[in-house]
Amino acid sequence: MPINKTDSYSINYEPLPHGASGTEISFFSGTPDLVSLFESKTENRRLFVTDTNIASLDCMEQFVKQFGIQDTRVSGTGKCGNNVLIIINYGEENKTIETVLSIVKAALDAAFTRKDIFTGIGGGVVCDMTAFAASIYKRGARAEFVPTTLLAMVDAAVGGKTGCDFDDYKNMIGSFFPVENLYVFPAFVNYQSHDQFRSGFGEAVKTALLFNRQLFEDISRNRDKISARDPEFIYKMIRLCVEAKAKIVEEDLMEKNRRMLLNLGHTFGHALETCAGLGKINHGDAVVWGMARALELSRNLGLCSESYVAEVFSLFSFFGWETGPESKVFKGPGKLLEAMRRDKKNSSNEIRVILQKGLEDSVITEVTDAEILKVLE
Amino acid sequence: MPINKTDSYSINYEPLPHGASGTEISFFSGTPDLVSLFESKTENRRLFVTDTNIASLDCMEQFVKQFGIQDTRVSGTGKCGNNVLIIINYGEENKTIETVLSIVKAALDAAFTRKDIFTGIGGGVVCDMTAFAASIYKRGARAEFVPTTLLAMVDAAVGGKTGCDFDDYKNMIGSFFPVENLYVFPAFVNYQSHDQFRSGFGEAVKTALLFNRQLFEDISRNRDKISARDPEFIYKMIRLCVEAKAKIVEEDLMEKNRRMLLNLGHTFGHALETCAGLGKINHGDAVVWGMARALELSRNLGLCSESYVAEVFSLFSFFGWETGPESKVFKGPGKLLEAMRRDKKNSSNEIRVILQKGLEDSVITEVTDAEILKVLE
Repeated sequence: MPINKTDSYSINYEPLPHGASGTEISFFSGTPDLVSLFESKTENRRLFVTDTNIASLDCMEQFVKQFGIQDTRVSGTGKCGNNVLIIINYGEENKTIETVLSIVKAALDAAFTRKDIFTGIGGGVVCDMTAFAASIYKRGARAEFVPTTLLAMVDAAVGGKTGCDFDDYKNMIGSFFPVENLYVFPAFVNYQSHDQFRSGFGEAVKTALLFNRQLFEDISRNRDKISARDPEFIYKMIRLCVEAKAKIVEEDLMEKNRRMLLNLGHTFGHALETCAGLGKINHGDAVVWGMARALELSRNLGLCSESYVAEVFSLFSFFGWETGPESKVFKGPGKLLEAMRRDKKNSSNEIRVILQKGLEDSVITEVTDAEILKVLE
Repeated sequence: MPINKTDSYSINYEPLPHGASGTEISFFSGTPDLVSLFESKTENRRLFVTDTNIASLDCMEQFVKQFGIQDTRVSGTGKCGNNVLIIINYGEENKTIETVLSIVKAALDAAFTRKDIFTGIGGGVVCDMTAFAASIYKRGARAEFVPTTLLAMVDAAVGGKTGCDFDDYKNMIGSFFPVENLYVFPAFVNYQSHDQFRSGFGEAVKTALLFNRQLFEDISRNRDKISARDPEFIYKMIRLCVEAKAKIVEEDLMEKNRRMLLNLGHTFGHALETCAGLGKINHGDAVVWGMARALELSRNLGLCSESYVAEVFSLFSFFGWETGPESKVFKGPGKLLEAMRRDKKNSSNEIRVILQKGLEDSVITEVTDAEILKVLE
């Protein structure tokens, strides 16, 4: 029986502001000093969010002390004037909706309004969750970041993606919600472990492969400076990566076109992280593993030369990354393929990957399962 | 010690599309027939979300049967071709982040992509949570509604507000996320209890007081038709209320200006709901209670005449609503004031309320605690 449509009415909306309409990125030299950074910013209330790892750093001692928090090794909250600090537990395994809600609850308990600012101080995990919490608090408060890891500085903190893991799938819930300010202190990398620093460096290499031949050549020529975390070189590398990513997200924030290139290594890498169990492998390491798979796939399909693959693999090897599919956390091709299929960027049943013809020359394409399996075995 | 800002960089974004850029509202006469409505819409996958109350209606039997669900009195999921139906537990007490996540999980389990559609079939609770789930699923899928209550038709389903309750505060988390389509079957009101129908009618009266003198007069003259749920009158009332609300949200989706008027009765009403414990009083009844408080406050401040208050109160009384502050769920002025202060629309320490000078003549203003207390005692 056909139903009887009797009338209709249309509404059209102005584009919705969701998050900031622009991001101001400031770079600072020298030891990170958050007391000085924020002491003059008194016109807004702030909910500072950090984790047990960052709260325990020497350079954070004065800042944390202001909030009357004694033990930084456990989660908790403190107050300082109108501002609140919440310390969450460190690590990807805490990148959950429960942690996001604990941030929301801290804001609610302190009667924060939508005009107040959620300030994430940490790596990608802290930043992603802080901005996600801000985006859902009373249907949208304000957010800003102090990224403290190389990975967050060159990648995670730039570009408006927020969220948390869900049901063992990485970043499965979240929103696009750009922050207003990014305060970058490259010297935070001095507090990172070798593994954490290397993980962030993986994303920097990705940026160079995609957009900056000069940076790739500088990196290749200055391997020792990178290993030694030479302040000047690191500052410059971060500055160039932020600029490259900023340009892309300015052009295509919602990842309809060119921003998809940033997923080089990520379809493979995210699937590896999912199969390993979240937190079992560093994100940047998974991305490097994924880039190696993507480059082999590019070569198999005749897109790039053997010598290009060899040049990139030589850099990976220098920094101790495996270039073959074997990895401590790799659970076999079948499971990986299944996880790749669930990637939130897929819009059909084919799996979408980013491949390369060479430096600064990438393509977005869909490939068959058979082609993917070839580079996993 | 001043810190050393060495460089800065700005990004500007195009306005972010968040949710649909427009909503198409279709009205249907006769018994709701969702099988017919959706049988030709096969170009998209759909996750239908409804509750145990709606799933158990006679008019829904054929629709639900398609998904192989036998017992509609308990929550569960079923499949029909590419589509999925999830039945959640009925009631405001289930308007939680856990229920929102159960919707997300159903989508994830069925490997829904961002291009698939979340279809909420229900009252405000179901619609708010369905669109909120869509807004955070993989950073944003698509959404549409079939509102099944008078309240959802005239108010909740129109206007892009999504969310759920949190920590005993109503709608404390959520987002602005307009849906693509609204399918309105006024005949769904025939399945509502007296109390539920009256609650929705409260929001219709609010719309009339704010924007449509003619509708208020029609309502006043046709009290018996409303009590008898006269199909023609109800259809017309819904149609006018949808149009009035649609105009306002088209003008001011983000509630920066005129849309705030829609909160007539809501600052008081939401606080009453919060103090009573969520779900203890129907939303529309709380709004009517709140409108009575707002009108008394308007009169106390010399904004409106005693005769205007009397005219509106006479209508309230006819439908069995109390017009004084006494209410079974009212826990006293102190608690109420505290809850009003936490309302998410406040941006300062003063409490913002909507008051009226008369029909179609409202003002947004901030008032002192003392003035508020006067209408609570």
